[in-house]
Amino acid sequence: MAEAVQSIFPDAKFGIGPAIKNGFYYDFDLPRSLTPEDLPVIEAKMREIIARDEPFNWREVAKEEARQIFAKQPYKLELVDDIPGDKVRLYQQGSFLDLCRGPHVASTGEVTVFKLTSIAGAYWRGNEHLPMLQRIYGVAFDTREALDEHLKRLEEAARNDHRRLGKELDLFSIYEEAGPGLVHWHPKGAIIRRVIEDFWKDEHIKRGYDLLYTPHIAKLDLWKTSGHWEFYRDYLYSPMEVEGQEYIIKPMNCLGHVLIYKTRRHSYQELPVRYAELGTVYRYERSGVLFGLSRVRGFTQDDAHIFCSFEQLKDEVVGVLELAGFMMETFGFTNYKLFLSTRPEKYAGNLEDWEKATETLSQAMEQLGLAYQVDPGEGAFYGPKIDIKFEDALGRGWQGPTVQVDFNLPQRFQVNYIGQDGKEHLVVMVHRTVLGSMERFLASLLEHYGGALPVWLSPVQVMIIPVADRHLDYAYQMEAELKQAGVRAKVDARPERMNLKIRQAQLEKIPYMLVVGDREMAEATVSVRLRSGEQTTYPDLNGFKERVRLAITAKEKELKL
Amino acid sequence: MAEAVQSIFPDAKFGIGPAIKNGFYYDFDLPRSLTPEDLPVIEAKMREIIARDEPFNWREVAKEEARQIFAKQPYKLELVDDIPGDKVRLYQQGSFLDLCRGPHVASTGEVTVFKLTSIAGAYWRGNEHLPMLQRIYGVAFDTREALDEHLKRLEEAARNDHRRLGKELDLFSIYEEAGPGLVHWHPKGAIIRRVIEDFWKDEHIKRGYDLLYTPHIAKLDLWKTSGHWEFYRDYLYSPMEVEGQEYIIKPMNCLGHVLIYKTRRHSYQELPVRYAELGTVYRYERSGVLFGLSRVRGFTQDDAHIFCSFEQLKDEVVGVLELAGFMMETFGFTNYKLFLSTRPEKYAGNLEDWEKATETLSQAMEQLGLAYQVDPGEGAFYGPKIDIKFEDALGRGWQGPTVQVDFNLPQRFQVNYIGQDGKEHLVVMVHRTVLGSMERFLASLLEHYGGALPVWLSPVQVMIIPVADRHLDYAYQMEAELKQAGVRAKVDARPERMNLKIRQAQLEKIPYMLVVGDREMAEATVSVRLRSGEQTTYPDLNGFKERVRLAITAKEKELKL
Repeated sequence: MAEAVQSIFPDAKFGIGPAIKNGFYYDFDLPRSLTPEDLPVIEAKMREIIARDEPFNWREVAKEEARQIFAKQPYKLELVDDIPGDKVRLYQQGSFLDLCRGPHVASTGEVTVFKLTSIAGAYWRGNEHLPMLQRIYGVAFDTREALDEHLKRLEEAARNDHRRLGKELDLFSIYEEAGPGLVHWHPKGAIIRRVIEDFWKDEHIKRGYDLLYTPHIAKLDLWKTSGHWEFYRDYLYSPMEVEGQEYIIKPMNCLGHVLIYKTRRHSYQELPVRYAELGTVYRYERSGVLFGLSRVRGFTQDDAHIFCSFEQLKDEVVGVLELAGFMMETFGFTNYKLFLSTRPEKYAGNLEDWEKATETLSQAMEQLGLAYQVDPGEGAFYGPKIDIKFEDALGRGWQGPTVQVDFNLPQRFQVNYIGQDGKEHLVVMVHRTVLGSMERFLASLLEHYGGALPVWLSPVQVMIIPVADRHLDYAYQMEAELKQAGVRAKVDARPERMNLKIRQAQLEKIPYMLVVGDREMAEATVSVRLRSGEQTTYPDLNGFKERVRLAITAKEKELKL
Repeated sequence: MAEAVQSIFPDAKFGIGPAIKNGFYYDFDLPRSLTPEDLPVIEAKMREIIARDEPFNWREVAKEEARQIFAKQPYKLELVDDIPGDKVRLYQQGSFLDLCRGPHVASTGEVTVFKLTSIAGAYWRGNEHLPMLQRIYGVAFDTREALDEHLKRLEEAARNDHRRLGKELDLFSIYEEAGPGLVHWHPKGAIIRRVIEDFWKDEHIKRGYDLLYTPHIAKLDLWKTSGHWEFYRDYLYSPMEVEGQEYIIKPMNCLGHVLIYKTRRHSYQELPVRYAELGTVYRYERSGVLFGLSRVRGFTQDDAHIFCSFEQLKDEVVGVLELAGFMMETFGFTNYKLFLSTRPEKYAGNLEDWEKATETLSQAMEQLGLAYQVDPGEGAFYGPKIDIKFEDALGRGWQGPTVQVDFNLPQRFQVNYIGQDGKEHLVVMVHRTVLGSMERFLASLLEHYGGALPVWLSPVQVMIIPVADRHLDYAYQMEAELKQAGVRAKVDARPERMNLKIRQAQLEKIPYMLVVGDREMAEATVSVRLRSGEQTTYPDLNGFKERVRLAITAKEKELKL
């Protein structure tokens, strides 16, 4: 692609051009902005180069030589300087020479099926203070079928984009006037969130957690004591001043939980203490990286902190992993992987604790028969952690549950318990979420189900569609009866044609539509239409009610008649 | 009292000394700080003066003469200057002369029963930049019985102080380290709050409200557009800066609701739109006025905003008043009064709208047969309002529900609907809360019930107390069965004596205690003890379970066997 671009723009300056998942990109500094119409032209050039079947040859040269070769390529010169050692590797095909570590395919003829997919702006070295280059993305596959499959998936992904679904299904908004990255939940989105939150709370209480509510602001000093000011300053909002004291809006919920724990002394008999909160936190992210619900500036974590002894740590981690698995399963995410992140170079606490804790995390996963990969050095500075990443229906990865051991906060805040020996011991703290955040989790649900959520999560579960005005009273009667049974039912009473109402309910991904006409009224039967188009008739409302009730209470993932 | 103080401190400087509800106070500038031991000495002097039965005489004098009389009383001189007109009134008994509008009782002998109750610091003119004076509070009654009754009530009030109960019942904390006025809800407090919130949400959904979630920060510009920056600036937190834009933590929820409403156009057929949110807001209050849960810096309003046409306003206000009455009733507050606050001097909107809206509020109350008082000029600048104040069991007043009409925001944000005429019309906005805030409402509940909350609100509803270790398994079995039935039951498994466990459960105001011993196990009967001390035996657990279930579902206010 770079050779093709050069042949069209002889003065092009070249940035970097790596291979990525499913494809590749290259960053160029060009005399004019590219438009989508440029892509077929570049593709045509590429096909010519491929047809020439030119071999890729490489050689190693001294940096001095490379600097002469790339004398008119300032970005390449920077790259040459950055490469360690005295030599760099060059690849050449035909007359085109590039700086590249390799490896490459043997010749241009080996590239069979490819497509340039998009153009984007990209700062040189990802730094917004450096020049903006133009990036061209492309994909390459072995077969035409694989490319078609990929393009189909991309199309489906665009259709399932949660930002698009959020608008179509009227679930949430982010307003420029209020601020980027700040999510406003519309009524229907709020119903989904409430259902998830209630389920989450009940499940936590069952599993021995206590719920808390803590404020959204606190004195900055608290965050200095904790180390957050030092380690996460870039993500914190600027302080507010109140009567000569600085406050910040909280970036995490842990400190409020530590204060509550420390309100009184705890004996070893009372441990573990498990505090859970749906706590809304605010973290600064550059506006360039904000993305729908999945990268935001304010989000509600399904947070919890466990205060326990080292001896209890394994059982607690097992409990969290079980809960996490149960949650993933319940919401329909069956494809997930575990990652164990170990001690980074800069860390708090002592080596022995780190080793014990890392070992404990491994044991917990092994006890549950869960396979995992190790991410060496990827732990937080305060302790090792387990991250669970799950895939949605289209194979895209999502950050899911996390379990983090913390040696730092107990030390800094002297979070103790009285042991059997009558003496004070530091607790081990565990930070964990099982959904991540309400915002990102809704995004993953929407994309996984393409907006057609399971019945228990659907904002409107049953849309009752009267054929004519004379069926309206009867429709309202059905609505009342369904609501009484805890079903979110609604009557579409608008003076519109039945087919239009059905189409709209389908667009809104409402699981069940009940069409009420003369026959249904006379026979007291229920004509049901699923959003998928399937239809059936229930002999009476009770039968249908039971079906919906079961779909809700059993949290059925598939919509059934 | 002032004469008595002067006889003890001849150099005392006198501030003001008005009559207040149930008693009186006087502010003094004294050469030394008073201690509680001074009060009996002053009381003794007062009794001497009362025994002399000296008549109170008054006369009017020219201000010039008054200035000479009070030459050594700087505070009185200030007061003389402030009184309009040329003359002031003086009262004299014996040799003591004071500036006073009157009226007074005829002579000191008419004062029969009194008691000095406390000493407090008070800024001259309530201004923290002026000198701090010493205030002595006292009460006076016609009879000894009335005084005793009052003192008993005070004692009871101190016992029922929500700050004290909050600590004793382990419900919440405010930590100096996190910041004054910021409430942290402990597990038991959070249970109460969740029960209230769930009830509140369900009730709102039943009544046609939609729930929302909106963020806690927004761009300052939004609050400039709304007028809050101009009118409420003193209560707003200082701005935070994000990428060159100023943000503030929200002092109210309305703007987020306005943005959501404005996401799309609304036809008259869709009105009224009712948006409800348990929204946590932050307002600056001077640390001097903060008080427990009832005056705080962060609180969760049970907020809602109704967008309707003027024609719908009356029905909407009726609906809110009905909901407010239902809430007050459900929580056991039967003694409440309504106040209609009318147009202040400085107001937004036009006169005609104000009159129509004020009239509409009156009509709504009249339609429901509710008596009300008028607070002239006490409306918000943006519209007239109804405030409901209720009394707790000890006769203390609490600020309750409020319904406020708003002409300002619809105008400033162009909040419209499409009328039957196809044109845009401004909506009328109603701001309302029916509990006020979660924090203040919990305070009122605690003080009203002296911490002994109705069963449905009690964090622990049933404490199961095994007599010996051999009853423990059976106790856990009962706990599981009760939990299964939705009852918050707990086993006190500590190796302590039964009587101690009962006493502690009583101190924790747990409604029901089940004592499980040999007989209860053998006969499968249930020995129940109420926190009030009453006892009975149920023939089986089912019978007891039904009793508790009914207490919960019927939200019974009285605890019954």
